[in-house]
Amino acid sequence: MTEDAADAGPGKGWVERVELTPPSLADNSGDADRLVRALKRRVGADAVRIELPLLRRLPGLLRESNWSLRCILFREPGGWVVTRALPADDPRPAAGLAVDLGTTRVVMRLLDLETHETLGERSFDNPQLSVGPDILTRIHHADTPGGLDDLNRLIIDGFNREIDGLCGETGISTDDLCLVSVAGNTAMTHLFLGLDPRWMVREPYIPAANAPGVLAARNLGLEIAPSARVFVFPNIGAYFGGDLIAGILYSRLHRSADIGLLVDVGTNAEVVLGNENWLIACAGAAGPALEGGVSEIGAMAGPGIIDRVAIDPETRAFHIHAIDDEPAKGICGSGFIDLAAQLFLRGMIDIRGKLVPDRCGDRFQEVKGEPRLVIAPAAESAAGEDLTIGQADLDSLIRSKAAMYTILETLTATVGVAFPDIAAFNVAGTFGVFIDPASAIAIGMIPDIPLDRFNPLGNSSLGGAAMALTSREALEAVYEIREGITYLELNVNQDFMNRFSAAKFLPHTDTSRFPSVDIPK
Amino acid sequence: MTEDAADAGPGKGWVERVELTPPSLADNSGDADRLVRALKRRVGADAVRIELPLLRRLPGLLRESNWSLRCILFREPGGWVVTRALPADDPRPAAGLAVDLGTTRVVMRLLDLETHETLGERSFDNPQLSVGPDILTRIHHADTPGGLDDLNRLIIDGFNREIDGLCGETGISTDDLCLVSVAGNTAMTHLFLGLDPRWMVREPYIPAANAPGVLAARNLGLEIAPSARVFVFPNIGAYFGGDLIAGILYSRLHRSADIGLLVDVGTNAEVVLGNENWLIACAGAAGPALEGGVSEIGAMAGPGIIDRVAIDPETRAFHIHAIDDEPAKGICGSGFIDLAAQLFLRGMIDIRGKLVPDRCGDRFQEVKGEPRLVIAPAAESAAGEDLTIGQADLDSLIRSKAAMYTILETLTATVGVAFPDIAAFNVAGTFGVFIDPASAIAIGMIPDIPLDRFNPLGNSSLGGAAMALTSREALEAVYEIREGITYLELNVNQDFMNRFSAAKFLPHTDTSRFPSVDIPK
Repeated sequence: MTEDAADAGPGKGWVERVELTPPSLADNSGDADRLVRALKRRVGADAVRIELPLLRRLPGLLRESNWSLRCILFREPGGWVVTRALPADDPRPAAGLAVDLGTTRVVMRLLDLETHETLGERSFDNPQLSVGPDILTRIHHADTPGGLDDLNRLIIDGFNREIDGLCGETGISTDDLCLVSVAGNTAMTHLFLGLDPRWMVREPYIPAANAPGVLAARNLGLEIAPSARVFVFPNIGAYFGGDLIAGILYSRLHRSADIGLLVDVGTNAEVVLGNENWLIACAGAAGPALEGGVSEIGAMAGPGIIDRVAIDPETRAFHIHAIDDEPAKGICGSGFIDLAAQLFLRGMIDIRGKLVPDRCGDRFQEVKGEPRLVIAPAAESAAGEDLTIGQADLDSLIRSKAAMYTILETLTATVGVAFPDIAAFNVAGTFGVFIDPASAIAIGMIPDIPLDRFNPLGNSSLGGAAMALTSREALEAVYEIREGITYLELNVNQDFMNRFSAAKFLPHTDTSRFPSVDIPK
Repeated sequence: MTEDAADAGPGKGWVERVELTPPSLADNSGDADRLVRALKRRVGADAVRIELPLLRRLPGLLRESNWSLRCILFREPGGWVVTRALPADDPRPAAGLAVDLGTTRVVMRLLDLETHETLGERSFDNPQLSVGPDILTRIHHADTPGGLDDLNRLIIDGFNREIDGLCGETGISTDDLCLVSVAGNTAMTHLFLGLDPRWMVREPYIPAANAPGVLAARNLGLEIAPSARVFVFPNIGAYFGGDLIAGILYSRLHRSADIGLLVDVGTNAEVVLGNENWLIACAGAAGPALEGGVSEIGAMAGPGIIDRVAIDPETRAFHIHAIDDEPAKGICGSGFIDLAAQLFLRGMIDIRGKLVPDRCGDRFQEVKGEPRLVIAPAAESAAGEDLTIGQADLDSLIRSKAAMYTILETLTATVGVAFPDIAAFNVAGTFGVFIDPASAIAIGMIPDIPLDRFNPLGNSSLGGAAMALTSREALEAVYEIREGITYLELNVNQDFMNRFSAAKFLPHTDTSRFPSVDIPK
């Protein structure tokens, strides 16, 4: 699916083959001028730049290649640049690297820029994890002497190491790599570029740059082709990053006549609503419950992590699925949502999310005064003891789901869109792939719209990054999205609080909003 | 005069002072975006780039400067770039360096980019003289292994050394230097940029680049401000370089309603004719006679070199002037033209330029069968022996002056301009400063137009280079001149040869063309 989507964009990629008329006394323009003239005509550009390293090789290259070149171009603000030129019949590939630069994980996809084939993919922990797991810790470290350099070097060295490995296993040279596109949140983007992020976390929350644009790879310290370019997705602000712009691009929200929604759920919930004519976005704290960081047993998806829960309506027997069918050792966000939905539908928690001891039977415990529920008994758990969640975990999930719903309600209300008008509900990331929308609806985390409107995108940040490498139109669209989007600052005012309070019930105070949910009597 | 001319261009320079509205929750664009927005508005540009080194310093800089900056911009094809930014009240100057990159001498002028004052000037031998005195030797050396790198390193090291010295004696830091403009012939420009010049000297004579444009100083190895830009004047071809484009700019030929002419005389004579609507140029071999390299005693201007000659009409006594009034040891081009004119006007050479023994009297000698003329007797010469010129030297001068006149005649005839229509006859270089136009007319080297139309420009290459640093309009004009100029390939056909033959007489076969010359009977 990713491949299709990456190729789906109309328009051309970045590779141009040109055959030049050899010079003569009648047309004795310089070599570079001859090439630039042909490329300008080809791509319809006012300015095409050739940098010094290529300029120096050009006279030889043109004559060896018999005036037939394959050029890899890229568009910069104000013009185009030639990132590489090869004889037309040179068998070496022209490669591009799409990167999802996550706070925790970095995912790289190596592409052939001409065929748009994926040559290889790899993911690795963000090396900055050694400094701190979260954005804030890193931003504070950047504020210490040498801290920003440390963080920058960690990620740049990581890039070079992994690029080297990825190219090696793919059998291409790092010199063949002439385009990179990077989509990440605003803080990760800053640390990647070595930009000072300190003002992002102080009111009024100012990034060093919203649109860092197109940079020379060598200036960033990336050891790839000499004139290689790095496109860094622009952000909307400190809290709405380039990863989301890439997500919008990938979701094609900006190309749809119908209204669509894009949701990226994490500690922050980021939401975009719109169509081909307008886009509005907001971000708000949704709490950690949906990320897996919520409870003692909360975890990222991985072997032994519960990702599906069903409870028999008659016997209330638990059917849990742990990843790779290993003994259960934790629960991820989508598993937790399933669990909460099932508990609610079976009457084991009430509309406030409180455990109902009568209905929970043997599974109910009280530890140090806190009601708890056994999800996997000792015999089925990895640790050999009961795997439980507490009332506090459930309370936290309720707050998160209420925040999510309130954000969606506020955003749609602001532009006067009713939930049923949303033709596509795109959910980004692995969360979107694993979540069961029926469960999310059952607890009132997302609105009660037909299930076939839900569209899990997978790694939309990586997908969008890849599109910028394979389609000129996609790169244009990035700037259009960036310019055209309205960012709604979520004011936590009385309206918002009223909505939030109403959403803290399962599925909602106003049950008529959730006709599909079989609310227990 | 140079200063006036540099300032004469209308329009603004490259320095902009901007006061930004500090960010707020209502306007929380990124630091770079805020600055770019203000600069775009200020200069009316579509794209303004800020490079990584400045981007990294920007958040601190904006807050230290209380959002008030002095930015030094420059225009690149497709957009503008910020080459330096300082707090508005920072006392450090923003400096620019204009360079006349000659084959033999390099002249540098350091300017304050805001006041347009000259801060200092120095000239030095082109360090590539160690490889060879002339262009062809250097181009051949560039063709040997490592040769191009050698030549490039020589000139770049020379630049760095002299820039360091010039900045030092002017009391500024090399970090204050953020713009450089370089005007040189096509070959010197290539060697400065490390571009392969080998195809320039093989038919069809192709430079690597006609318009190398605007380069990052650090990519060229220049040790000045981190984001400094180097503007390299474009050329028209292998034989018509950026020094002449700079000359046209400086002469203001392209801004004049009347038709003007620009002549740069050397081994090659380069000529431009035109006005604000059109420009036509050509270059042709004029022979070395006019450069001072002609005869055994020919020399560049310097102490003891004869630059003025008068011969008494009655007594035929010689009044020679040697530079610095030192004993005569040679003669430069302008001195030689004076000498030839005086000899002709006194009847001491005939209309073919042949020495007339009767008229030369004591000064006539015959050495190994060659007629010679004593210019300075042993008593007045530096060497203590007679300083003489031979018939061969005179013959060579006649060929040179005939070539010059023929080039001018051919160029004007091509566009249907008569000599009297030329409102300004600009002569570039030191040659233009020293030459006596009356003498040049007397021998028929240049057409017989009123003397007040002659305009010696001095170092017009340096002057033009300085203009590009002080006026946006001047930089625009460079590209306009480059695009608008027609280059006339001089075909040495029968017409040309007929004209040349007619011009080999003093002043010309058709004496009616030189009414002001008092031709001896």
